Amino acid sequence: MAMGTRDYSPKQMAIRERVFSTIVTCFKRHGAEVIDTPVFELKETLTGKYGEDSKLIYDLKDQGGELLSLRYDLTVPFARYLAMNKISTMKRYHIAKVYRRDSPATSRGRYREFYQCDFDIAGQFDPMIPDAECLKIVHEILSELQLGDFLIKVNDRRILDGMFAVCGVPDSKFRTICSSVDKLDKMPWEDVRSEMVGEKGLSPEAADRIGEYVRLHGGLDLIEQLLQDPTLSQNKLAKEGLGDMKLLFEYLTLFGITRQICFDLSLARGLDYYTGVIFEAVLVQQENEHVEEPVSVGSVAGGGRYDGLVGMFDPKGRKVPCVGVSIGIERIFSIMEQKVEASAEKIRTTETQVLVASAQKKLLEERLKLISELWDAGIKAEMLYKKNPKLLNQLQYCEDTGVPLVAIVGEQELKDGVVKLRVVATREEVDVRRENLADEIKTRTSQS
Amino acid sequence: MAMGTRDYSPKQMAIRERVFSTIVTCFKRHGAEVIDTPVFELKETLTGKYGEDSKLIYDLKDQGGELLSLRYDLTVPFARYLAMNKISTMKRYHIAKVYRRDSPATSRGRYREFYQCDFDIAGQFDPMIPDAECLKIVHEILSELQLGDFLIKVNDRRILDGMFAVCGVPDSKFRTICSSVDKLDKMPWEDVRSEMVGEKGLSPEAADRIGEYVRLHGGLDLIEQLLQDPTLSQNKLAKEGLGDMKLLFEYLTLFGITRQICFDLSLARGLDYYTGVIFEAVLVQQENEHVEEPVSVGSVAGGGRYDGLVGMFDPKGRKVPCVGVSIGIERIFSIMEQKVEASAEKIRTTETQVLVASAQKKLLEERLKLISELWDAGIKAEMLYKKNPKLLNQLQYCEDTGVPLVAIVGEQELKDGVVKLRVVATREEVDVRRENLADEIKTRTSQS
Repeated sequence: MAMGTRDYSPKQMAIRERVFSTIVTCFKRHGAEVIDTPVFELKETLTGKYGEDSKLIYDLKDQGGELLSLRYDLTVPFARYLAMNKISTMKRYHIAKVYRRDSPATSRGRYREFYQCDFDIAGQFDPMIPDAECLKIVHEILSELQLGDFLIKVNDRRILDGMFAVCGVPDSKFRTICSSVDKLDKMPWEDVRSEMVGEKGLSPEAADRIGEYVRLHGGLDLIEQLLQDPTLSQNKLAKEGLGDMKLLFEYLTLFGITRQICFDLSLARGLDYYTGVIFEAVLVQQENEHVEEPVSVGSVAGGGRYDGLVGMFDPKGRKVPCVGVSIGIERIFSIMEQKVEASAEKIRTTETQVLVASAQKKLLEERLKLISELWDAGIKAEMLYKKNPKLLNQLQYCEDTGVPLVAIVGEQELKDGVVKLRVVATREEVDVRRENLADEIKTRTSQS
Repeated sequence: MAMGTRDYSPKQMAIRERVFSTIVTCFKRHGAEVIDTPVFELKETLTGKYGEDSKLIYDLKDQGGELLSLRYDLTVPFARYLAMNKISTMKRYHIAKVYRRDSPATSRGRYREFYQCDFDIAGQFDPMIPDAECLKIVHEILSELQLGDFLIKVNDRRILDGMFAVCGVPDSKFRTICSSVDKLDKMPWEDVRSEMVGEKGLSPEAADRIGEYVRLHGGLDLIEQLLQDPTLSQNKLAKEGLGDMKLLFEYLTLFGITRQICFDLSLARGLDYYTGVIFEAVLVQQENEHVEEPVSVGSVAGGGRYDGLVGMFDPKGRKVPCVGVSIGIERIFSIMEQKVEASAEKIRTTETQVLVASAQKKLLEERLKLISELWDAGIKAEMLYKKNPKLLNQLQYCEDTGVPLVAIVGEQELKDGVVKLRVVATREEVDVRRENLADEIKTRTSQS
């Protein structure tokens, strides 16, 4: 199969469904609608939205007709959707696969095809209220999934841009220097600095000034301190960003979640389209690991504000401010899978309530009649696809797949108008009148 | 956006979820597991599986690395999955998008990206038992969706091939003549005949003999008649196929569904990989239409047996017999959408239980605190993202979106430790103690 892709087995699907269910429940709790968009978009729709990452976009072969690309994320298609349908207010989630021609590192849960779970709020609202809700959502989901301790880093593109300006970065280099800062979670400062100076032609002095700022992280205290910073506070953008950051922290305090939130000036996020608040959630240590210093094991959610993206798709440039979050579901799957493997938990991959079986030969027709009755009564039922299966094999099938009940058809029972119902776990057997069988199965399986 | 693709709006998603739910419930009732596979496969995986339709496969651009194509159906990826994982028995469903570079006819529900809902049974079993279950599943789903009257046409590739042989079609022309026969649901016999004779070089005598057979359709009586047919019954393949068809009809009689099943010698199915039973379900007339003769409005499900496909992916050619069904979900969506439009039914696109509101100004912080408490208690809650929204606007929002309850924060209520709970439909208002609010909301919304 194609490199960097994977199949999901029934067992993996069962785990995946659990994770999705937690996430969707949270999105619905916050009043979100759901939409879906196509897997491919016009190539021009994706052009110029992802900065240096644009090289990772999958293009379709030109087979005549339009030039198409596989979607790189769910944010750009959402913006295209809003503009195309002239929607100015919407709270929606979208769970779907996206595509990146990245070097796959499948052992670390990095694939070329992977799911994203996005929640976004579009519309002109009072500052930081939707932004705070996005962070609340990340907090709820990561708490409910019980993945261990996590930290949500927060910054603002306006603070970064203001910082670049006061450090002496020319306007034309803002985005590329921002990309360098974004690598700080994977590279030491020295390497990032030499990329800025060597590859990107930034002056060493400007780089060193940036170096002073990006090592800062904290909470409301740091925000207050920077609002007093004689250089930074002179910059209009930075001041706006810091003012909103203060408001955001006030709202997060009302939500009671500031313990897991950190204002971090080194957070930059790679994508071009962010215009305000940006954030990223990381797990700080694996469960069962005893380490002195919390170690980041990678990003599990990220997002931010993008007030200009919808306007790029509108013929009149009409803007729709947006803020959203994307849950990094593949890494979460990997962790959940490891947890299930490590535990003794046996995961069922079907919901079958009863196996329709027979102890004697020549009863295929009777089994077919009975299973048909049960299906029509809404019972989840299976039978072995054999004319004359052995009872032992039929019981073994139940043991292997976790089917709790067996309905055994026999000649005497047929005469008596009953079916023998066997409980697999206890081996208890009772005769049930055929007309009551479906109800009896429902009763017996509703408790489990 | 790309030609032949579409977005799903929240309202369309709500309808889609209903249809999916019916289908998935049925698949689970029959004991199916679920898997997922990637959207793209190695190009070579799809090569040589689809006959004349192969030209409709979407290829990815060669950007270095492997040659990739978007999946054309879910059957070939399933066969690849079984072979790759050396699985010899499996009953699974798979719901996902597939891709065809077809001429889009979006008004008739034909897209270039569309969902398929597949259920397949893989394994070496006694004849026709899984095949009959697939037909039962189609019958259950189409009945439950209440799309109107339907007919499931059944045939067998072995009967077709035997018929071609006795009619004088050379072996090398079996598949291409089969493709011509497949067009009989869209073209009159005369056009199909001239394609066979003109384009494909079949002798006029052979074509006319085929013409005699393909107009036959019926039930067990026709099967018996053909088993006595002096020409056809001489052919080993046809005889096998007819014998199994008889068995199939016996099982379908036990399931009580033969009234909607028709043995139809003109049914051919386009794809190369079928080896035995094939079938296709059509809606015979739209509801509310009064026509003398039932008119077919197109295929809504199809499938068949493909015993050779898995072996094509196994290094040792090890075979795994398979039979499966694919539900044509897009056409079903179109019909359901039309039904909803025609009815007065108002579809909610969120599940929000309560809007957290305020009647006075300067209560944003109090609304944020209350909504946070409700979210943490598992209540689906929204608020307007405004500092000082008007009560009228907040109530109007509930009317527009169907939110049934409003929790109104007020200064006096805050002092008294209560929240005013308003029922939108009746305008009834009660004071509820804050600590009981979540439970009160749960109680009041569990009945709806």
